[in-house]
Amino acid sequence: MSWTITADQIPALARGAAVLGTGGGGDPYIGSLLAQQALDGGPVTALSLDEVPDDALVLFVAMMGAPTVMVEKLPSLDEVVKPVEALGTYLGRPITHIACAEVGGVNSTIPIAAAAALGLPLVDADGMGRAFPELQMVLPTLWGVTASPLAISDEKGNVAVLQTVDNSWTERIARVATVEMGCSTMIAGFAMSGAQARASLVGGSLSRCVEIGAGIEAAREATTDAVTATVRLLGGRELFDGKVVDVQRATTTGFARGRARIESTDASLTLQFQNEHLVAESEGRTLATTPDLIMVLEGDSGEPITTEGLRYGQRVRVIAAPADERWHSAEALAMVGPGYFGYDMPAHRFDGTVSDASAERHEVPA
Amino acid sequence: MSWTITADQIPALARGAAVLGTGGGGDPYIGSLLAQQALDGGPVTALSLDEVPDDALVLFVAMMGAPTVMVEKLPSLDEVVKPVEALGTYLGRPITHIACAEVGGVNSTIPIAAAAALGLPLVDADGMGRAFPELQMVLPTLWGVTASPLAISDEKGNVAVLQTVDNSWTERIARVATVEMGCSTMIAGFAMSGAQARASLVGGSLSRCVEIGAGIEAAREATTDAVTATVRLLGGRELFDGKVVDVQRATTTGFARGRARIESTDASLTLQFQNEHLVAESEGRTLATTPDLIMVLEGDSGEPITTEGLRYGQRVRVIAAPADERWHSAEALAMVGPGYFGYDMPAHRFDGTVSDASAERHEVPA
Repeated sequence: MSWTITADQIPALARGAAVLGTGGGGDPYIGSLLAQQALDGGPVTALSLDEVPDDALVLFVAMMGAPTVMVEKLPSLDEVVKPVEALGTYLGRPITHIACAEVGGVNSTIPIAAAAALGLPLVDADGMGRAFPELQMVLPTLWGVTASPLAISDEKGNVAVLQTVDNSWTERIARVATVEMGCSTMIAGFAMSGAQARASLVGGSLSRCVEIGAGIEAAREATTDAVTATVRLLGGRELFDGKVVDVQRATTTGFARGRARIESTDASLTLQFQNEHLVAESEGRTLATTPDLIMVLEGDSGEPITTEGLRYGQRVRVIAAPADERWHSAEALAMVGPGYFGYDMPAHRFDGTVSDASAERHEVPA
Repeated sequence: MSWTITADQIPALARGAAVLGTGGGGDPYIGSLLAQQALDGGPVTALSLDEVPDDALVLFVAMMGAPTVMVEKLPSLDEVVKPVEALGTYLGRPITHIACAEVGGVNSTIPIAAAAALGLPLVDADGMGRAFPELQMVLPTLWGVTASPLAISDEKGNVAVLQTVDNSWTERIARVATVEMGCSTMIAGFAMSGAQARASLVGGSLSRCVEIGAGIEAAREATTDAVTATVRLLGGRELFDGKVVDVQRATTTGFARGRARIESTDASLTLQFQNEHLVAESEGRTLATTPDLIMVLEGDSGEPITTEGLRYGQRVRVIAAPADERWHSAEALAMVGPGYFGYDMPAHRFDGTVSDASAERHEVPA
């Protein structure tokens, strides 16, 4: 069912997106400013996947780069629109719908801004049901949707249109271009039909973000436990409650990489991240890994903390929740499992069990 | 006057191009193989600049990357044609003429192959009258011709079309893409009208390459001194005669950078290069610098030696010759003088005097 995104929903949406963003996507407050500004120009209609016509031309619009830099270089509305226009010219046919590549602070609100500025409907869905650091890491890749042609642009006015042999090559070339352009760019790509979108996207993610964000707010107002409320909503579990005692972080090759250590009175937990939290380990045991969701929330308020927002001394609670089940196929785990990121361990589900890679990969209707 | 490029002219042309290429552009023998193969499919007509109509659409076609890598990854004819076709599609109008961005081994023969494969005339001219390592370093840049839209492609089938804010940004983004694509790509860009081509290109460079190459061959057959013949033809002078005693070379950030030391019985000469020879110094004196031409020829045969072909023990003669006078304007020296390359010295002309940057920059007719 379609709904109209209003400016007053944005704070809840951005907060919920920062939860599902598993530490990536940048500061939700910054992302929400842009969306609210864009909605001043006119409302945006969010359509559910089943409302998108088969012959639609759906496009991902996103910000690419290290979140540490993205939050300092929030684009203007002109910049958000630029890669979409470049891609429309290249494709020679009109874009009909905008969608989110991922959920996560900036990348849940940038598409709202793009849809508002372009006067297009937004699909209430995203390409992952979470955030991942590399461009090819979306379910549509596994459904045969090509990232290219992909337009990439910077705030100086430089634009490139990439047409690559596969989605990993789109990532490689867009990444080095992004680093050269100043570690933060706007991209538009993954042009797909309505049928392809329905088959491969994660439906209802924007509504879910609003629900999660509003739930945290409501729990806080009712002085009930916001973290427990979020865990229940996500069908997840709480992994750890403690204090951040060490954060190592470096922005290298266009990513914010690092690890954080969190201590309670009798145990410690280590988080490893690359834009997003990817592995949680404690006392020699793996508690959860990518593709399942690992999230850090403020101990008191339940406010999500991004990987670049982690600070020594913060009291945090670490929670885990199941990813969209399609991420647990063998092909998907090869693309986003711990091994891809250089961690020598099998994928663990949010409940600490090893993933049996049992999900089937379904083909998209032609 | 137009002429037909025949396969039997290619060895002389490639040899002459390697001389004017001042050490850059890769092995002329490898470049000539590709052009000869292409000419088997049909002849190429070379037009002088005054034969190019005002409303022509002239395009540079070149190989980009470190010559050390380029000579190991010579493209197929399909690969040579690919960026031209991508750019034609992007521009939405037919390319009418191909031109050389520079003279230098591979980049004098690749455009011949492109012209042959596309059935287009080639302009007997180039963008520099020599070779330079970076993409923006052509006279058309100073005449307001934009490098973008520029198409870049690799042997795997990846293509990008860049539309940048200036020619230095085209270089920056194309360079990082080239490095990521394997240090060697094909590019097509600098779309210009016939009027712009006439105003900004160096005319007659291909004929000049044939003349220089044939002159070396003739001198060798007549057992007269090929180096002296070349110096006379170029209006240059001989700087040094000696033996290569040291070569330091590294392929970094997509360039072959380094230095070579050459010794005679009583003196030594140091050459600094970045794909091309840029500075020649001896006994504390600067003998010549970019933009004038510094070339290394085999002592006996007069055969040009590329920077990646320099070896310990080679007997060589180093010669210098004047660049196209337009390179001695203040704007041009800011773009290609020693300071740009990080050498702390003013530009010296081929005769050892300091360039007074006296050349005027003329505007292109609209």
